[in-house]
Amino acid sequence: MIIEEIYQSYLNFLKEFTAFKSISTDPAFATDIANTARWLQDQLAANGFKTEFITGYDNPLVVGSYIVDPKLKTILIYGHYDVQPPYAKASEGQARMIEEDLWKAEGWENDPFVLTEKNGRLVARGAVDNKGQIALHLTTVFELIKQKKLNYNIKFLIEGNEETGSPNLRHFIEDHADLLSCDSVLISDGEIASGHPVIEVGFRGVINTAITLTTSDRDLHSGLYGGSVPNAARELMKLIEKLYQGTTTIAIDDFYDDVIAPTKEELKNHASFPFSIEHHHRVTGTKKLFSENSLDFYTQTGLRPSIEITGFESGYNGVGFKNAVPHTASAKLNIRIVPNQDPKKTVKQFEAFVKNNTPSYATVTLQLGQGCKPIRINPKSELATKAAKLLTQEFNKKVLYKYCAATIPIVIDFKEILGVSQVLLPFGNEDCNMHGANENFEIDLIKKDIGVAWGLLS
Amino acid sequence: MIIEEIYQSYLNFLKEFTAFKSISTDPAFATDIANTARWLQDQLAANGFKTEFITGYDNPLVVGSYIVDPKLKTILIYGHYDVQPPYAKASEGQARMIEEDLWKAEGWENDPFVLTEKNGRLVARGAVDNKGQIALHLTTVFELIKQKKLNYNIKFLIEGNEETGSPNLRHFIEDHADLLSCDSVLISDGEIASGHPVIEVGFRGVINTAITLTTSDRDLHSGLYGGSVPNAARELMKLIEKLYQGTTTIAIDDFYDDVIAPTKEELKNHASFPFSIEHHHRVTGTKKLFSENSLDFYTQTGLRPSIEITGFESGYNGVGFKNAVPHTASAKLNIRIVPNQDPKKTVKQFEAFVKNNTPSYATVTLQLGQGCKPIRINPKSELATKAAKLLTQEFNKKVLYKYCAATIPIVIDFKEILGVSQVLLPFGNEDCNMHGANENFEIDLIKKDIGVAWGLLS
Repeated sequence: MIIEEIYQSYLNFLKEFTAFKSISTDPAFATDIANTARWLQDQLAANGFKTEFITGYDNPLVVGSYIVDPKLKTILIYGHYDVQPPYAKASEGQARMIEEDLWKAEGWENDPFVLTEKNGRLVARGAVDNKGQIALHLTTVFELIKQKKLNYNIKFLIEGNEETGSPNLRHFIEDHADLLSCDSVLISDGEIASGHPVIEVGFRGVINTAITLTTSDRDLHSGLYGGSVPNAARELMKLIEKLYQGTTTIAIDDFYDDVIAPTKEELKNHASFPFSIEHHHRVTGTKKLFSENSLDFYTQTGLRPSIEITGFESGYNGVGFKNAVPHTASAKLNIRIVPNQDPKKTVKQFEAFVKNNTPSYATVTLQLGQGCKPIRINPKSELATKAAKLLTQEFNKKVLYKYCAATIPIVIDFKEILGVSQVLLPFGNEDCNMHGANENFEIDLIKKDIGVAWGLLS
Repeated sequence: MIIEEIYQSYLNFLKEFTAFKSISTDPAFATDIANTARWLQDQLAANGFKTEFITGYDNPLVVGSYIVDPKLKTILIYGHYDVQPPYAKASEGQARMIEEDLWKAEGWENDPFVLTEKNGRLVARGAVDNKGQIALHLTTVFELIKQKKLNYNIKFLIEGNEETGSPNLRHFIEDHADLLSCDSVLISDGEIASGHPVIEVGFRGVINTAITLTTSDRDLHSGLYGGSVPNAARELMKLIEKLYQGTTTIAIDDFYDDVIAPTKEELKNHASFPFSIEHHHRVTGTKKLFSENSLDFYTQTGLRPSIEITGFESGYNGVGFKNAVPHTASAKLNIRIVPNQDPKKTVKQFEAFVKNNTPSYATVTLQLGQGCKPIRINPKSELATKAAKLLTQEFNKKVLYKYCAATIPIVIDFKEILGVSQVLLPFGNEDCNMHGANENFEIDLIKKDIGVAWGLLS
């Protein structure tokens, strides 16, 4: 009953870990952030790790090394200790008001910083993202050390800025490549799919953009001028709509030039995934699934690019009405790119699109990030092969080799700087509601995951 | 030099009048509002008027009656004493912060509540809208009384909620039709055009609407789901864009059924107006003038319906990016209708449009006001004919009989409840910047206007 024992240690560990209000999106929690990192360092040190508390890259980073035998292979396990705020207004000055009314308004049934058990799940902010997943590796490794069954040298890198986009992590990795040197990277920061265990074989790249369009230097009376002057809201809507051809195909010139069409093998693989439209609608709350040329959901989201409007604002949106034609409108767009697209080239294509489609009577300013490259990961590395065997054993279900439609920038950084193989082994349940209310980790799943981690590292 | 004398009284009167912070859009100014109304009542009483201070219809209304001779005709002069805030944030709790930094940020060169003279203009909040215009009638009438040259019985109705849409004024008129009984209504609350005097011959009607569209009960990760789920912002954009056919034509079914095409006479009249595209671009700050089938500006805005987006909001619009597909989006639309359109029928057409164009996977909720009817005004009433003669004399320029593209709901209320003829005689300069910074009234124009008012009422 080694699994039950580890689960008990895990539970105690996670109770303490989730009690820290390590919210990175709000500077008001800087002290909580520092306390969390210090606590993590203590936990690692108490279990025999050589530790480093690294500052100078925004929130502190904790690195721990446990060298069993220099001849053994070394695995670097990455995770993050920072969490999303458990209520909406944290960034608007209500930082210290973690009170019942705030988290209740978000839909939490209990204090998000007190780990509770409900319906066979552990509920807390960070229960899955990412405290619950990194804690699983930590407690399993600690037990393996105790029992002298650890078969790899282990390094932990646990950061505190994942929820703010890890802006300085690449610099840290560049500066500390020696400290992080390893044979493989192991990351658990995602979800299984339809009850099946998952090994992720790639991620889409991402570019965030903000557009502001202006048609005048002043708003104009919507009565006196209605129907005769450009309306910034409508002009920006028209510009954005031109990005699309139908529901999901992107109409930017040359946008698909470098996109690699899904291979027959990938299509066959995705088609073999269990998928139910009812399950999808339940998980997303939507009533419609879009795709290009009837591609399956996993190919559409994993291997086809997308542009989503993530914000739009123009004119007056308060109580009542202000009868004015807005002279300015702004939008945020989230572009996801796939192999073999290059973010720099995509940025140029997008800029050209905006330039060519802005009418002469409007002015546009663009804010465009550098973006992050898409990545494919070899699912047949030694460690991944071992993981797959263990997953099959524990879950007694087919392992899904799945493209993750989202982006983990660190994966690119590890590849480009460390140049080692990576295993992306998501542990969470699909309905964990990470970033939302009542974030939760299924206990039965935790135990299966512990079994996998134990087998993988022993 | 009677005009110069009246101008001096006017200047003194307006100095005191504009010093009141009678901002109706912010409840924090309730005391200033009450003080303004009381001061107005005192001014009327001091000049021999029988006055009433009426409460119970939101901000106080002031009514004054001066009966020269019951056999003479009675003119009811309407105006409003409330003003727009001189800075943007008044409604967000900064009510009492009328400080230099706030109004300077808005572009004011001097304290908006201290009347100043600059470049031949009187500058203050309310200088034109509407303190400056109603003050012109008040001081002229006071002088006519002193000189025993007033040739009509005069009633003043001055309200304090015009800037909040006069929500209770119709009820007041209904309840006090006797008190307001008259032969004609005279209103000065607008602007002349391209230096030519104007008599307004009609107003567009108006309907304000708010739409909220939802595609789920939660936002979705734009990486995990990007390109595969409905995006509320885009769905609402597409719905709104379907309202239009090209730039200004409206695509709602049957929308134009009751629209009366501009007559040859109207087209000829408008074509004879002085109009320069450079002047238009300067006044609006835009670089483009839209119109249906090359209609002139005055016909397009005065006699063609329009729909303008006045607000749009969806997703995250703060600093940085939130990578989520928004599940809800909302917009405000301002619909202007023309003779012979009926707001109730238009509301129904709009509702049907929304119903027919909302995709099955989205839900829409609508907020729809009753709306206000369009109106045509007889420009050949006895008083209007007299006004036209005086305008020609004072300005030595052609009088423009102009449809006002905006809406003054009170005009409909007066027509429907009092049933008398109305003269809409705007006094302001076109570049007065009402509602904006450095609102101003041209002194040369004021003197011409005083000449017209003097002649009209003597």
